Amino acid sequence: MNSSATTIQLRRYKGRRLGAEEPDVVAREEPLEIRVEGRPLSVVMRTPGYDRELAAGFLLTEGVIRSAKDLFDITMCVEEGAAGKGNAVDVALTHPGSFDFEKLTRHVFTSSSCGICSKASIDAVMKRRKPLSDDVRVPASVLLGLPQKLAREQPTFKSTGGLHACALFDAEGRLLDVREDVGRHNALDKLIGAALLEKRTPLHGHIVLLSGRTSFEMMQKAHAAGIPVVAAISAPSSLAVEFAEESGQTLAGFIRGRSMNVYAGAERIG
Amino acid sequence: MNSSATTIQLRRYKGRRLGAEEPDVVAREEPLEIRVEGRPLSVVMRTPGYDRELAAGFLLTEGVIRSAKDLFDITMCVEEGAAGKGNAVDVALTHPGSFDFEKLTRHVFTSSSCGICSKASIDAVMKRRKPLSDDVRVPASVLLGLPQKLAREQPTFKSTGGLHACALFDAEGRLLDVREDVGRHNALDKLIGAALLEKRTPLHGHIVLLSGRTSFEMMQKAHAAGIPVVAAISAPSSLAVEFAEESGQTLAGFIRGRSMNVYAGAERIG
Repeated sequence: MNSSATTIQLRRYKGRRLGAEEPDVVAREEPLEIRVEGRPLSVVMRTPGYDRELAAGFLLTEGVIRSAKDLFDITMCVEEGAAGKGNAVDVALTHPGSFDFEKLTRHVFTSSSCGICSKASIDAVMKRRKPLSDDVRVPASVLLGLPQKLAREQPTFKSTGGLHACALFDAEGRLLDVREDVGRHNALDKLIGAALLEKRTPLHGHIVLLSGRTSFEMMQKAHAAGIPVVAAISAPSSLAVEFAEESGQTLAGFIRGRSMNVYAGAERIG
Repeated sequence: MNSSATTIQLRRYKGRRLGAEEPDVVAREEPLEIRVEGRPLSVVMRTPGYDRELAAGFLLTEGVIRSAKDLFDITMCVEEGAAGKGNAVDVALTHPGSFDFEKLTRHVFTSSSCGICSKASIDAVMKRRKPLSDDVRVPASVLLGLPQKLAREQPTFKSTGGLHACALFDAEGRLLDVREDVGRHNALDKLIGAALLEKRTPLHGHIVLLSGRTSFEMMQKAHAAGIPVVAAISAPSSLAVEFAEESGQTLAGFIRGRSMNVYAGAERIG
């Protein structure tokens, strides 16, 4: 068991009877307040761990910063509280003067969505960020092999059944990094934040594998990090497919055994 | 196919080759702007349909309103836009004067979490809302039978694999209502909103079944609607278990075949 899981007491019902209390492990979930220049920007419900990476990734994928150069420092807040120690992180920016707090809270508050209609949302994102032109090619066999590689690296999911995972691969299918979290957005933000803090973004030529489904926001976050290929074990939403087409990303889903669906950017596969 | 799903084009990879384009269905995802008294409060990424219920449920479970009496009217906005028709909903309150917009945006913006530490979050919720005292009893056999009843009512999940579902049952296990959505919070808000609009809240003595995992926010929403028993097919998070204990709710998980785990409120089962 690692810090992503914690022990609770439960009672198992089986064989027509409710057993006595016994310990089991569940995925940890706690709030993290992300502050910028000391001001609270957002509170995310996340699995503790990699909090600096989470904050860095969140700020990049939500459009608050553009690159590692915009980050001056990220510190865990250690003030006292009932259980609050370490549940806040403060980000200092290189150019705090360029930080428009009101605009940002408005942006983050609306769940990354930028308009009333889906077309307007995609247009708004694409106005701020260019479609990707990345000529990486990925063999289908590489994509088909990713879920097995992720499964080997998901210890907390195995013990709790309660975490989403995201994994970063290079175009040859080498596993570079994995993050697990109760929140799918957090898992991706942590993965991207880790790369950002090591100055490896934008992630040209890389593949991200999602353990679950693909939504608009997951595509948008991958795009903000420059990731050209998104692969998922489950289904995409309509807006994820639309976004992939507009953004020049490759989107594969239902990767199971020797088959998968390719929803956009099939020219990179082969 | 219903309006929860839409047709897209994909290419299937199988038998070592990528096929030609063919149609398939995916779950629809579009943004909905929820306005109160004409002012945008939040944008949620949701599956279109039951939008008035979604808005009503969201306002109840986020603490903006207390009961159906606080709602004067909910209207779909039909102004023009690229694809925006029907993607905004405006809520008129019975007492608009009591509506503190700044406080609310701050509250909703922080993702329902009210403090920096998990203990503070639960305390804050419990300060505004009392723990439930509901003496309903539910036979274990009723809980074990719920997933099968839900499975029969999930047409869009079957066709797309892309939706979360929530179902409402009475204490005898009779299915009362089901909602599906790309967002798990939305599915629950729609279910609760439907009951609210029919003046059936608070939902004393009811059971809600979640198709996936249970997080803090799902417990909090069920609690806001007065639902004493939350059952889920998958795992809970640590904070969901903690919340259930503090709120006086029963929480069951991993309901599979003839067994399940009971994390809190076992006294209601038997």
